[in-house]
Amino acid sequence: MDRLTIIKVGGKVVEEPESLSALLDQFNKISGNKILVHGGGRTATEIADKLGIETKMVDGRRITDADMLEVVTMVYGGLVNKRIVASLQARNCNAIGLTGADLDLIRAKKRPVKEIDYGFVGDIDDVNTRELRLLINENIIPVIAPLTHDGKGNLLNTNADTIASEIAIELANYYSIYLFYCFEKRGVLINPEDESSVIHDLNLSLFNKYQKEGVISAGMIPKLENGFRAKRLGVKEVLITNLENIVTGRGTRLD
Amino acid sequence: MDRLTIIKVGGKVVEEPESLSALLDQFNKISGNKILVHGGGRTATEIADKLGIETKMVDGRRITDADMLEVVTMVYGGLVNKRIVASLQARNCNAIGLTGADLDLIRAKKRPVKEIDYGFVGDIDDVNTRELRLLINENIIPVIAPLTHDGKGNLLNTNADTIASEIAIELANYYSIYLFYCFEKRGVLINPEDESSVIHDLNLSLFNKYQKEGVISAGMIPKLENGFRAKRLGVKEVLITNLENIVTGRGTRLD
Repeated sequence: MDRLTIIKVGGKVVEEPESLSALLDQFNKISGNKILVHGGGRTATEIADKLGIETKMVDGRRITDADMLEVVTMVYGGLVNKRIVASLQARNCNAIGLTGADLDLIRAKKRPVKEIDYGFVGDIDDVNTRELRLLINENIIPVIAPLTHDGKGNLLNTNADTIASEIAIELANYYSIYLFYCFEKRGVLINPEDESSVIHDLNLSLFNKYQKEGVISAGMIPKLENGFRAKRLGVKEVLITNLENIVTGRGTRLD
Repeated sequence: MDRLTIIKVGGKVVEEPESLSALLDQFNKISGNKILVHGGGRTATEIADKLGIETKMVDGRRITDADMLEVVTMVYGGLVNKRIVASLQARNCNAIGLTGADLDLIRAKKRPVKEIDYGFVGDIDDVNTRELRLLINENIIPVIAPLTHDGKGNLLNTNADTIASEIAIELANYYSIYLFYCFEKRGVLINPEDESSVIHDLNLSLFNKYQKEGVISAGMIPKLENGFRAKRLGVKEVLITNLENIVTGRGTRLD
């Protein structure tokens, strides 16, 4: 099977011109087929603020009422996504920006209201990669914004880490998938203050142990859960790393 | 050659939920390959206003400074485009939203500053339909927002009527193109107050005559110039009409 690299990049990296430029230079060095999945939360918060819309987060997840859905549709699907696409085109990288609604790529259900009403937030039901694979096989680079749709005409705000892992899992039927979660640190750290304390290999039992001991921070847990799920379901390699190490392949490797 | 219908729809129609829904129901009735090109100016003005950004228009064209470019990127590429895509998916129409940056579809040059500095407004240099045709041939429906790029990483605001005609001209090498400009009226009217005064057939000499006599209004002139250019360069049929007549094919036909 051909190799396909999926890079998920968090908010800040794609939201500031210099770090975006550095990211895309690194991304451009990856040979073979590739996909970029991005966030955009900081810009969404900033635009919402300017529009007088209050940002409410619960456990790092954005409460998405109708007004906030407009904001994330504009920011994720428009501003952040199209800037990345134009910047990749300037690097002779034939990018295409997509949301989960385009090509019916990702269907989701609005999250049921339990203790918390997350609003227009989608939990993924189904990933359809037929048309996506046509694009990949033409050497086109998909750039995917964290939005899905419910098949009834509604867009839904969906976690970018989960989008990356669910697409990786589905595409693992067709490609040898390398999934890289790229953030500020060099990997999962034993001591968050010490960049040299990277856990190089992390398996599920070690993850559970660290989680119990409180070594792994709350924000990292869903990312790692997504990563382990991808690993279990056929993704060849899952790496948590930073921008500089996209190419070297150093960071925290999930076993 | 296969038939391909290109529908360009003006702002208001795509910006209000009811008229958008009516449009997409009509659009869905068109058989064969099709493309939708949309505007979004009213929403852009509204969002700009909420963000405290002043909208300046010259001869119906938006002055696009850096702040306004952010707004139109969000509104055209994100909000309006992705809403249409999700609504088409709900109608089992496999849509994909695109700007001119995606797939390197439309390259443009920033308009040179003469009497007026239009800012980040693009004049089209080159339309590359290779990947677009791959999509069309897979029965995918492109939904195109009025943004282009300069190949150096910059997005540019570009008139949707011109995007529709330039894409039509390029695709006329591969398909039998029907280009429909859809707006509020039933066609070009001799008397703007009288909806029954539609000019059914309009040729260039009649157009020039009406233009001299002031019968055809200023706002309609660039649309018709685009239309005549498309007709001259191989587009099979150019029709100016309203929503209801997309399917009947009644309206003003350019000769």
